[in-house]
Amino acid sequence: MEEIKQLSKIIKDESRIIYGEKIEKKFLSDTLGRKQGKASALVFVKSTQEVSEVLKFAHKNKIPVTPRGAGTNLVGSTVPFEDAIISDFSQMNRILEIDRENFTATVEPGVILQDFQKYVESLGLFYPPDPGEKMASIGGNIATNAGGMRAVKYGVTRNYVMGLELVLADGTIIQTGSKNRKDTTGLDIKDLVIGSEGTLAVITKCLLKLVGKPESSASLLISYDSLKAGIESVPLILNANINPTAVEFIERKVVEMGENFLNSISPAEKNIHYPDADCKAYLLITFDGSRAEIDAAILKLKEIVKNISRGVFVLNGTEQSANIWRVRGCLVKSVEAVSEQEPLDIVVPISQVDKFVEYVNSLESETGMQMISFGHAGDGNVHLCVVRGSRSEEAWQKELHENLKKLYEHTHILGGLISGEHGLGVSKREFFFGQTPQENVALMNAIKQAFDPEKILNRKISYVK
Amino acid sequence: MEEIKQLSKIIKDESRIIYGEKIEKKFLSDTLGRKQGKASALVFVKSTQEVSEVLKFAHKNKIPVTPRGAGTNLVGSTVPFEDAIISDFSQMNRILEIDRENFTATVEPGVILQDFQKYVESLGLFYPPDPGEKMASIGGNIATNAGGMRAVKYGVTRNYVMGLELVLADGTIIQTGSKNRKDTTGLDIKDLVIGSEGTLAVITKCLLKLVGKPESSASLLISYDSLKAGIESVPLILNANINPTAVEFIERKVVEMGENFLNSISPAEKNIHYPDADCKAYLLITFDGSRAEIDAAILKLKEIVKNISRGVFVLNGTEQSANIWRVRGCLVKSVEAVSEQEPLDIVVPISQVDKFVEYVNSLESETGMQMISFGHAGDGNVHLCVVRGSRSEEAWQKELHENLKKLYEHTHILGGLISGEHGLGVSKREFFFGQTPQENVALMNAIKQAFDPEKILNRKISYVK
Repeated sequence: MEEIKQLSKIIKDESRIIYGEKIEKKFLSDTLGRKQGKASALVFVKSTQEVSEVLKFAHKNKIPVTPRGAGTNLVGSTVPFEDAIISDFSQMNRILEIDRENFTATVEPGVILQDFQKYVESLGLFYPPDPGEKMASIGGNIATNAGGMRAVKYGVTRNYVMGLELVLADGTIIQTGSKNRKDTTGLDIKDLVIGSEGTLAVITKCLLKLVGKPESSASLLISYDSLKAGIESVPLILNANINPTAVEFIERKVVEMGENFLNSISPAEKNIHYPDADCKAYLLITFDGSRAEIDAAILKLKEIVKNISRGVFVLNGTEQSANIWRVRGCLVKSVEAVSEQEPLDIVVPISQVDKFVEYVNSLESETGMQMISFGHAGDGNVHLCVVRGSRSEEAWQKELHENLKKLYEHTHILGGLISGEHGLGVSKREFFFGQTPQENVALMNAIKQAFDPEKILNRKISYVK
Repeated sequence: MEEIKQLSKIIKDESRIIYGEKIEKKFLSDTLGRKQGKASALVFVKSTQEVSEVLKFAHKNKIPVTPRGAGTNLVGSTVPFEDAIISDFSQMNRILEIDRENFTATVEPGVILQDFQKYVESLGLFYPPDPGEKMASIGGNIATNAGGMRAVKYGVTRNYVMGLELVLADGTIIQTGSKNRKDTTGLDIKDLVIGSEGTLAVITKCLLKLVGKPESSASLLISYDSLKAGIESVPLILNANINPTAVEFIERKVVEMGENFLNSISPAEKNIHYPDADCKAYLLITFDGSRAEIDAAILKLKEIVKNISRGVFVLNGTEQSANIWRVRGCLVKSVEAVSEQEPLDIVVPISQVDKFVEYVNSLESETGMQMISFGHAGDGNVHLCVVRGSRSEEAWQKELHENLKKLYEHTHILGGLISGEHGLGVSKREFFFGQTPQENVALMNAIKQAFDPEKILNRKISYVK
């Protein structure tokens, strides 16, 4: 494939283009690194114009293209196929504008979520989406419609994307959306592209909605005698007009795993401990707003859970709160320190969370495969680590596949979905096709065809046939 | 076209099918009644299955179909063309389910907004979208992504649609969305259909998101020496973390027109008067939430506008508040009592509202054509009545067209859009094509092609080429 070298006419800066064998392994995978792809070139794009020219070239030569943000995805979305060109956005990472009058930010897709959040907060503004992985890129967040902790109050990434600059598969540059708060002026292409995992177009600019930074926030832990009791109090909390920002659930045994992990990697901090060590489960809840609002909400919350919980612990000060959240943040890493694991991202209707977690526990006892569940109780998004343990590669693959099938089937029965925020990538395609009606798959692929008739964009991931 | 009579095999109940000349005139138009179309049949559908069969028949015979909700649209969206079949949803108007645990409602598309709002509020729940026209159908609201008063705090209809049952042009029935709060499981077809004005698919079931009913609400008026001062205080209000539900602006002269109209149609109520008759403009603001939150917000608001306003009038009790809002609600009717008018639905970025209204005023003085502006200052959605006055039909058409061109051009310069919530319909197609890049129009039509290759659904409205 000698024509690939023509890319050097588009990306003239040699340091921004790497061919074939010289491409570092990490660019050929996702953050888990288990699946490795093949690429003919890796380009670090710097402008919309460059992206457009790379796509024109790829389209003409029918070469697949894999867009890549920070590569933090968990489902193989950035695994390149068939000697693809990897279009890496890490150098397109400028914050281009903050518009205080209209509460918007315009950023390039390579901006890192954490940097962006910090920056807007330093200006007294606030970007509500808060996925667990803070090192993800904004472009990646949009491609997967990332959700995160604060979705209970604020909604998901979709709710904060007002506009996108896109490059279509043939290199055409399109502006969608605007700074306007309402819009019924033709089809909503922007919302179709959000969550489409790079299959329809490449994002080159993001117009994001901001809100005023909340005056203050507070977190608290509620401890329970059983996970069931904890989950049962979630609808009571959501029903009480107290508007929590986040409602997370964690089993006590999972907390201990996180505490041990954190205390082992930084022994100086051996004092990270959740209160009420004898309980079986916690809800971790956050409120934000004015001090008075928060105080009123906490008062009401205590009343609501009085008879169903063991104790309510308002976290004092930033340090204690940060430590408690650090445990929540390190759960996946603490599992991975011990064993390989498969991360799941199931979402079920809020009313089904307890039934789903019950099912997971029964499947765990039945199969002997450890399953650690925790996640966003307030919006039904349950994260699950299915743990390999000491299984041989063969046994692991076989048993894992059987258990995934059961888990996704049960999810479907409960009215749930395979992915709440990670996306389908390559990992979940089989299960998606297994439980999505043929008519829906056909329509999605007809839309794909309208955007990208040569199927050069992410043709092996997500719903693409 | 004798084959049309075969519809009687699908709709067997004779009272639900009317052919050709026997169709009442009101079904051949929108609520303004100025444009009249032609239809070969009017069917009052009662089930998804019927809709599917009607569409299969129409698709096979290449007969256009015009879906019709309550017919309250202002832009000719329900004007049938080319001997179309009108599929009327007024008898598909059942509320099918209220799911208290998941905060959802499932309704048929013919449910009237006002009935739905009342019903869910009687259950302690709340459906935030609140377009001016309360007699519109939920299906119509979704087809135009209707916005309304409360969009400042709560967002638009899109934000409250969790799922749609759709019938595609060829009769295929599709389920999109679900009761899940997060979703990255394939393409988001639901959001593409919202706001597509019936061009992609026919809506047969709506899964809506509800919230808890706010404990209480309060409205207040702020009076100003100039509209400019009023509009200038809007960003201060939006910036203050007081989360207003609605922020409307009205010029004093427009208020007087509304007062006179209301007092003339019901002389017993001659006491409907806005305070501070010497001012030039008002902001009408609503808060909702707990009593304490609202009191805190009002206190803060008074402080913010102290130096820029003439007075702040907290509306006492339900009756005064209702009367003030009645004037706001009757503005279009009070114009229409005097003269024909063209209703506009322009949206501009919040920061541009004052510039837009200034332009309208200068255009009014320049051309002598009366233009009454009022609307949603908090989200930039300015409603404009361009008034015919005593012009001859010919002069009115000519001058109106010239002025619309200027208004839409200036909107475009300010970064605004032709339609915030009414849709393009047939009325605004010319202006839409005039200022939308060719690439966007081409992509929209490629998507249309993927959904409806025979173009039987609303082929003369909106963006459809």
